[in-house]
Amino acid sequence: MDTLTRLQAMSDRDTYSTAEIALSNRNKGMPLDLLRHDITPVGAHYTLTHFDIPFLDPETYRLEIGGLVDAPLSLALGDIQAGSAKTVAVTLECAGNGRSRLDPRPTNMPWGLEAIGTAEWTGVPLHEVMALAGIRPQAVELVFSAPDEGTQKGIRHYYQRSLAIAECQRHEVMLAWAMNGRPLEPQHGAPLRLIVPGWYGMASVKWLTGIEAVAEPFMGPQQAGSYNIRKSPDDPGERITRIRVRALMTPPGRPDFPTLERTADAGPTRLFGRAWSGEATVEQVEVGIDGDWHEAVLGEQVGDFAWRSWSFLWQATPGEHELSCRAADALGRSQPLEQDWNEGGYCNNMVQTIRVRVE
Amino acid sequence: MDTLTRLQAMSDRDTYSTAEIALSNRNKGMPLDLLRHDITPVGAHYTLTHFDIPFLDPETYRLEIGGLVDAPLSLALGDIQAGSAKTVAVTLECAGNGRSRLDPRPTNMPWGLEAIGTAEWTGVPLHEVMALAGIRPQAVELVFSAPDEGTQKGIRHYYQRSLAIAECQRHEVMLAWAMNGRPLEPQHGAPLRLIVPGWYGMASVKWLTGIEAVAEPFMGPQQAGSYNIRKSPDDPGERITRIRVRALMTPPGRPDFPTLERTADAGPTRLFGRAWSGEATVEQVEVGIDGDWHEAVLGEQVGDFAWRSWSFLWQATPGEHELSCRAADALGRSQPLEQDWNEGGYCNNMVQTIRVRVE
Repeated sequence: MDTLTRLQAMSDRDTYSTAEIALSNRNKGMPLDLLRHDITPVGAHYTLTHFDIPFLDPETYRLEIGGLVDAPLSLALGDIQAGSAKTVAVTLECAGNGRSRLDPRPTNMPWGLEAIGTAEWTGVPLHEVMALAGIRPQAVELVFSAPDEGTQKGIRHYYQRSLAIAECQRHEVMLAWAMNGRPLEPQHGAPLRLIVPGWYGMASVKWLTGIEAVAEPFMGPQQAGSYNIRKSPDDPGERITRIRVRALMTPPGRPDFPTLERTADAGPTRLFGRAWSGEATVEQVEVGIDGDWHEAVLGEQVGDFAWRSWSFLWQATPGEHELSCRAADALGRSQPLEQDWNEGGYCNNMVQTIRVRVE
Repeated sequence: MDTLTRLQAMSDRDTYSTAEIALSNRNKGMPLDLLRHDITPVGAHYTLTHFDIPFLDPETYRLEIGGLVDAPLSLALGDIQAGSAKTVAVTLECAGNGRSRLDPRPTNMPWGLEAIGTAEWTGVPLHEVMALAGIRPQAVELVFSAPDEGTQKGIRHYYQRSLAIAECQRHEVMLAWAMNGRPLEPQHGAPLRLIVPGWYGMASVKWLTGIEAVAEPFMGPQQAGSYNIRKSPDDPGERITRIRVRALMTPPGRPDFPTLERTADAGPTRLFGRAWSGEATVEQVEVGIDGDWHEAVLGEQVGDFAWRSWSFLWQATPGEHELSCRAADALGRSQPLEQDWNEGGYCNNMVQTIRVRVE
């Protein structure tokens, strides 16, 4: 059976719905060939939007800060940019990255492993802006609001997420207006977004128009109703926070189109990739060659909250091979070889495997 | 049956393979919410790459011009940029746009309708650079070569395409190094690419490293073996050239996630979209409301080879509605209501339809 025939005769496990393909055509992954770049080009950084991409005119834009604060504020973009701007490289990853590899597969954006990117974000620390308003002692969280609107699980709502006050005080949490040195593009949250380094992407609210200090934990649909790790439908679940440790590899060799099956030439082949963790420094990457694990050489971290490169010289011999990679961080956390299934298909850092034929 | 259950129980027609989802996760469409922008943000412009994205160092980059020329040239990027640079807005569309709507669906990148984008490309006219080399009279075509390599239909090759000499002499065909005012990003062909305004995207060769003047029509895999309109597998086919007329609409209302089903509020609703043709000026756009066609108001063209906007005020009444749009150009060409099927799923400009529930 040739490859195309085989593809067309695949099992149920390998069939996707029209809705999934529509999600995939709309949301964007970073092709893993681009792992070579320390900083992901703007046009290759992953994006995931639940609803339509809003348009906010930077000339008339306001950020409204209210709730449990001493002085409610309505800030123009220029007011925010007058703060002490800094630029930080941050690796972001969608909490659903890897979802399409789960069995059974949750119905949602069917990410392969491309829901990643590292950008240089320019902005001001959130805590500096909030200090102007003065958060009152009764506040336990800040709620971040955006104008993108739709329904999910039958509830019509705007995209909103919250963070505990202590998290908001971290120096690296910022209100960002530029990405890789240029104003945010619309699909990345123009003109202003939150960036929460170390956390999965759902926390970094795009098109930020409101911040409210609240006395009780926020229970909106994107907080209590989604982005939780549930082992069953009635499991209240555990909130998703920091990015789990992960290594990814640029597939070696060359692809077939449209099957994307890969072939490489025999001989010394440098395998290359990136590794990151939102919880601690990556201290080890191992490369699996047909199930045998070997130590990779680590490069520098691109930033405190950004990935580091790794490489490994593989002596490629003719035949079929399965390549893998896995990272471990300073907290001793590593990646599972088997899926860690949950209802939403979140936070799955099962090791990547690549099949390649060497000739 | 609720929507999710319905999605999960869909017919064969609506099942996609793992290879298709991998293609879809790798290649990028422009969300139709971004039709509002005259010029597509770099990060939202569609990309389609057959093989891996190569990296060419702009410092050491050379464009080699040879074959039937008086003076073969090896040009650095700076040599090319020393020419008479101009910036032109061009709408590009993948020849496979709309493929996922075909029945039966060809196995290839399963585009919805997002394989589009309009950018401002900066470069020099190809004919000016070729005049330095001097094309000999025996030459019938120029062959454009790039270093992206893989297999397709069993043939290992680099991506190469050709154009007839007369086409290459058009003033608007350019060697471009910038997109929307900035150096090309890797996935868009850095550091130099061809731009062939009016043609489907396969002609605008990215990562351009070679131009060869040849005495016979080029028959490489991406020219004779692909990008042809074939009604059956043994049909030699007709070459794909210019972009067929098309109108697209930003879906009104708000989406559900993850089904992307749409709901809008009753009352006056401004429908908005874009229309373009690679063959002639778009002279008419009509909007279909439940099968009745109405004239839309046209905006200015963004450029000679770029789209124009259109709008229509719809009186949305409660219930289920089907919205469509279709354009006609100065040559009298319009869009079919039924699919124009071919083996590769190319050049399909069947009208868009959007279902929306008004409440």
